[in-house]
Amino acid sequence: MKNLLVAQSGGPTAAINATLAGVIACAYTSGKVDKVLGAVNGIQGVFAENFIDLREKVRSAAQLDLLAQTPAAALGSCRYKLKDLEKDQQQFEEIVNIFRKHEISYFIYIGGNDSMDTVDKLSAYCASKGIDDIFVVGAPKTIDNDLMGTDHCPGFGSAAKYIAATFSEIERDCHVYNTKAVTIVEVMGRNAGWLTAASALARENGEPGPALIYLCETAFDTERFIEDVRAKLEMQDAVVVAVSEGIRSKDGVYISEEVQSGAVDNFGHSYISGAGKVLENLVREKIGCKVRSIELNLMQRCAGHITSAADIQESRMLGMTACQCALDGKNAVMAAVIRKSDAPYEAEFTSIPVKEVSNREKKVPLEWINEAGNDVTEELLAYLRPLICGENSVIYENGIPKHLVLY
Amino acid sequence: MKNLLVAQSGGPTAAINATLAGVIACAYTSGKVDKVLGAVNGIQGVFAENFIDLREKVRSAAQLDLLAQTPAAALGSCRYKLKDLEKDQQQFEEIVNIFRKHEISYFIYIGGNDSMDTVDKLSAYCASKGIDDIFVVGAPKTIDNDLMGTDHCPGFGSAAKYIAATFSEIERDCHVYNTKAVTIVEVMGRNAGWLTAASALARENGEPGPALIYLCETAFDTERFIEDVRAKLEMQDAVVVAVSEGIRSKDGVYISEEVQSGAVDNFGHSYISGAGKVLENLVREKIGCKVRSIELNLMQRCAGHITSAADIQESRMLGMTACQCALDGKNAVMAAVIRKSDAPYEAEFTSIPVKEVSNREKKVPLEWINEAGNDVTEELLAYLRPLICGENSVIYENGIPKHLVLY
Repeated sequence: MKNLLVAQSGGPTAAINATLAGVIACAYTSGKVDKVLGAVNGIQGVFAENFIDLREKVRSAAQLDLLAQTPAAALGSCRYKLKDLEKDQQQFEEIVNIFRKHEISYFIYIGGNDSMDTVDKLSAYCASKGIDDIFVVGAPKTIDNDLMGTDHCPGFGSAAKYIAATFSEIERDCHVYNTKAVTIVEVMGRNAGWLTAASALARENGEPGPALIYLCETAFDTERFIEDVRAKLEMQDAVVVAVSEGIRSKDGVYISEEVQSGAVDNFGHSYISGAGKVLENLVREKIGCKVRSIELNLMQRCAGHITSAADIQESRMLGMTACQCALDGKNAVMAAVIRKSDAPYEAEFTSIPVKEVSNREKKVPLEWINEAGNDVTEELLAYLRPLICGENSVIYENGIPKHLVLY
Repeated sequence: MKNLLVAQSGGPTAAINATLAGVIACAYTSGKVDKVLGAVNGIQGVFAENFIDLREKVRSAAQLDLLAQTPAAALGSCRYKLKDLEKDQQQFEEIVNIFRKHEISYFIYIGGNDSMDTVDKLSAYCASKGIDDIFVVGAPKTIDNDLMGTDHCPGFGSAAKYIAATFSEIERDCHVYNTKAVTIVEVMGRNAGWLTAASALARENGEPGPALIYLCETAFDTERFIEDVRAKLEMQDAVVVAVSEGIRSKDGVYISEEVQSGAVDNFGHSYISGAGKVLENLVREKIGCKVRSIELNLMQRCAGHITSAADIQESRMLGMTACQCALDGKNAVMAAVIRKSDAPYEAEFTSIPVKEVSNREKKVPLEWINEAGNDVTEELLAYLRPLICGENSVIYENGIPKHLVLY
């Protein structure tokens, strides 16, 4: 028997199950795979031998489509890093023993840079032991779009589409009153501002979109911020601001930490606020106009009801690519997208050494941020545009999107 | 000339422009209306004579459809209450003079209970002066669903659909980790819990949905809440809680006010947190597990990309009904829906005296909340179900929903 095991890891996205659907589709149609197993909760599910027989749970093309439109990791996730190979080989031995027991020849791990570290280490262990019949391959995933070596990441396009649409809707909402008001919208991204940059796409149909955009790649200056907001308020009533959760001062201190460190409520526990809330309080104090903050929170990564067709299609293709790599006997690679052109958008699917990806981060290039550090450039928009294109025909039941639940 | 003036007021919704589209469609097709004018920023736009010629701005059925899918009041809004008729007649005289100047015979005001107060007073003033050629009619609007006299309110169904879909997606997201974690989701509603109740619809397709639901109609007991959460945590890892922003203690004090009154940050300004944030801190202190809070914020009222087909269709019908009432010479009425049956859902459109609506609120009946005060009953679900049904084919451009911008 040659069985395939697939697992998911890291923060969930609206497209990670599309990649899973791609892996399954490739395995089913390859004629080379017997059992198709899913480990529950990532590598932890491997150790626990907590496997789902996917041939039982996903029985038709229609169910594959349902899986692809289901947000968040259908196999569950984990945040677990394997130890360094030099320090502890026991974990790796254990994994290989479990693979042998379940006759697993192919292991596909869908995740971000931490997950690619797992692929890297496990492949290296197998190589060091001369194991030549187990193939470990990664498939990318992250809404943060911060993986090296791939033009962009599955899940990012859908999150970016949600963000662009939502900013355009929030802008409509804020536009209705003729009083001065500031709305600060905090977008996910501790170290990379890609998602926050996507707010600029709210302007694509001629609407104003965010008045100011602050990414975490540039140092955030609170005085400059207040000046920027004041200047915009002189020109317009409703000022919508997009801000990365991870904005930092020039000393590298998170704005959220910097301002709120002394805050306690009357129970004595400290308030943990995001950057948006901190800036809301700052505007209230320094400018005194009506102000609110909004966190897009989990919704930006789990909004399966508004995904990018480009993203979902590519996520499936990357899952298929990863599976095919394993079947072709590759090891220590991650499926990746290479962009051929922006407009018309053309892309190719390939695989790259996982070493190029693991434990690294791809940030927004500084030349794609304007000089004032409060907006993005046309180059960034040209990069983003194709990624949010197209809509999926989401299947609804009883008025809400239907999901495929695996466990 | 017999001209029609329409305006929008109060908090925006994803369906208020569908009602505007209904008013316009009826006016265009009636053969009885010359100019169709829109006042910008509600009754304030009437005083300012800030009118848009809608025959110029909305020229085709396709543009009416675009208008109907555009969230938030396309004519702008205001929060402005006319003075009591007994105290000050000057405002009313001014309005009538402006109507005479612009040959306005029909005035349709789309809004909530405050807006119906305007319809009521203005109609009463005209009646008191023997004016028999100006007809003032209301069309309902509010995501809160708290208007008397109508089975439900335009805008509510779409917000409820967004909330049900979003809870089901958040539940998927929270389900991926196998650690104990509480997620508290705060839903709009200061005095009526209808929107929070809609979170229960996330269970319709067999998924767990929220584990606990607290509406503002019942007294909120923080100790009981912690007990409820502890009990759920014993049974499951991910506990998602739905809570109305307006939950109050048995003494009527908002939970948000009660707990946070002493909170200040190190700049000395007090934190303004919602009920969700307060409960998040409470869970952290009393239980100590992983906990987060999410505010659905403006997104729940402006998510034009996921509206209920039932809601959008009915919103248009109510706009048409309101316009027809004015053309038929009615005054001081509001268009309303009467439900004939739940399943299959059947409804009729009618008009009711605006006096039944103005300055009153319809809350969730206490018998539709379970005894423990932490969930809703089947009766409430039967009421809610038809309101979120059906999906609209939203027109996209450049990857985001297209909007019709009137000013």
